[in-house]
Amino acid sequence: MERIAIDMDEVIADALAKFIKLYNRDYNIPLDLKIDAGNEIYHHVPENVNQKWFDYINEPGFFRDLEVIADSQRVIKALQQKYDVYIVSAAMEFRNSLIDKYDWLAEHFPFIDWQHIMFCGKKIVDADIIIDDRSKNFVNFKGRTLLYTSPHNLLITEYERVSTWEEVAGLLL
Amino acid sequence: MERIAIDMDEVIADALAKFIKLYNRDYNIPLDLKIDAGNEIYHHVPENVNQKWFDYINEPGFFRDLEVIADSQRVIKALQQKYDVYIVSAAMEFRNSLIDKYDWLAEHFPFIDWQHIMFCGKKIVDADIIIDDRSKNFVNFKGRTLLYTSPHNLLITEYERVSTWEEVAGLLL
Repeated sequence: MERIAIDMDEVIADALAKFIKLYNRDYNIPLDLKIDAGNEIYHHVPENVNQKWFDYINEPGFFRDLEVIADSQRVIKALQQKYDVYIVSAAMEFRNSLIDKYDWLAEHFPFIDWQHIMFCGKKIVDADIIIDDRSKNFVNFKGRTLLYTSPHNLLITEYERVSTWEEVAGLLL
Repeated sequence: MERIAIDMDEVIADALAKFIKLYNRDYNIPLDLKIDAGNEIYHHVPENVNQKWFDYINEPGFFRDLEVIADSQRVIKALQQKYDVYIVSAAMEFRNSLIDKYDWLAEHFPFIDWQHIMFCGKKIVDADIIIDDRSKNFVNFKGRTLLYTSPHNLLITEYERVSTWEEVAGLLL
C-alpha cells in the first residue's frame, strides 16, 4: 500500500483564516483580506504589527479551534481505503502547538490513529506521495509531490498543484 | 551526510528506572529489581497491579524527569559532527508525553534543534541508520539497524546490537 504524508496547516487546517481573525480583532484588518500571490499574512498588515503573527502562533490554543479545510475529512477517509495515510506536521517549531494539534486531530480526524500522526521538524518521511503547501518540504522528498494551493505558493510553478480536496480525490482515488 | 534516527525511551532516556521507582513507591517493588531477559516491567510486579504502568506513563510529568542514559549526550554531540542526527520517538501513543518529551530534550539535549526532532507513531523515517530498543521499528526500515540493549530485547538475535553509547561511538565515529 502506498504511503501518503499529508500536511496540516493550509492543507487540512485553516491557519491563515485564524491569523486574519486575530489581526481583525486587534488591529481592524478586514476579515475579507485577500493575500496577494506569493505573499504571507505579514505582508498585508501595518509594519509595526507585522511580527504579531509570531505571538499569535505561540499562544496556547491557537491551533485548537482552526476551521477544517473543505472536504478534507471526507476525501482523506476515502484515501484510507486505498493508501496508508499519515498526517505529517512541522509542529516542533512551536512548542505550544503540540497538544493543540493532537487534540484538534482527535476531534476532527478521529479515524486517523496515533500510529499515523507525525509531528516533526524537517520532513524526513519515508512516503510515496506528499501533500503540502510549503515546497521547502519537497526538497529531499523522493516520491510524488502535490503542492496544495495557498496564497503564498501561487507563484511556484515547478510542482504538480492541487487547489481543493476534490482535486486530490480526482487525482488519487 | 548520512541521517541517524535515535529513539528516546531506553536509548537516551531511562523510562524503565522511573517505572521501578513508581512501583517501589506504591507497592514496595525493590529499587534494584532486575528484569529477566525478554520481559517487560509488568512481568515482575504483582498481577493485580501489572497494568499500573499504563496509568504511570499517561500521567503528566512521567517523561519530564527521566534520567539521561549514560554518555548519550556526549556521543550524540560527537555524532552531529559527522551525521545529520534526528531524535525520533513514538510519542504519539501517549498524549501527555508530548510536552514533557519536548521540554526534556530542550533541557538535556539543547544542541538538537526543533528541525531534528520527530514525534511519531509508526517510524516511517527516511534515514540511513536507526538506533532503537524496539525491533518492531526496524520492520520497514531500509537502512542500518542498531538494537540498543534493554532487558525486553535481550533474546532478539537478528539485529546488530549496541549496549552502551561508548559502543555506538566505537561503531559510528
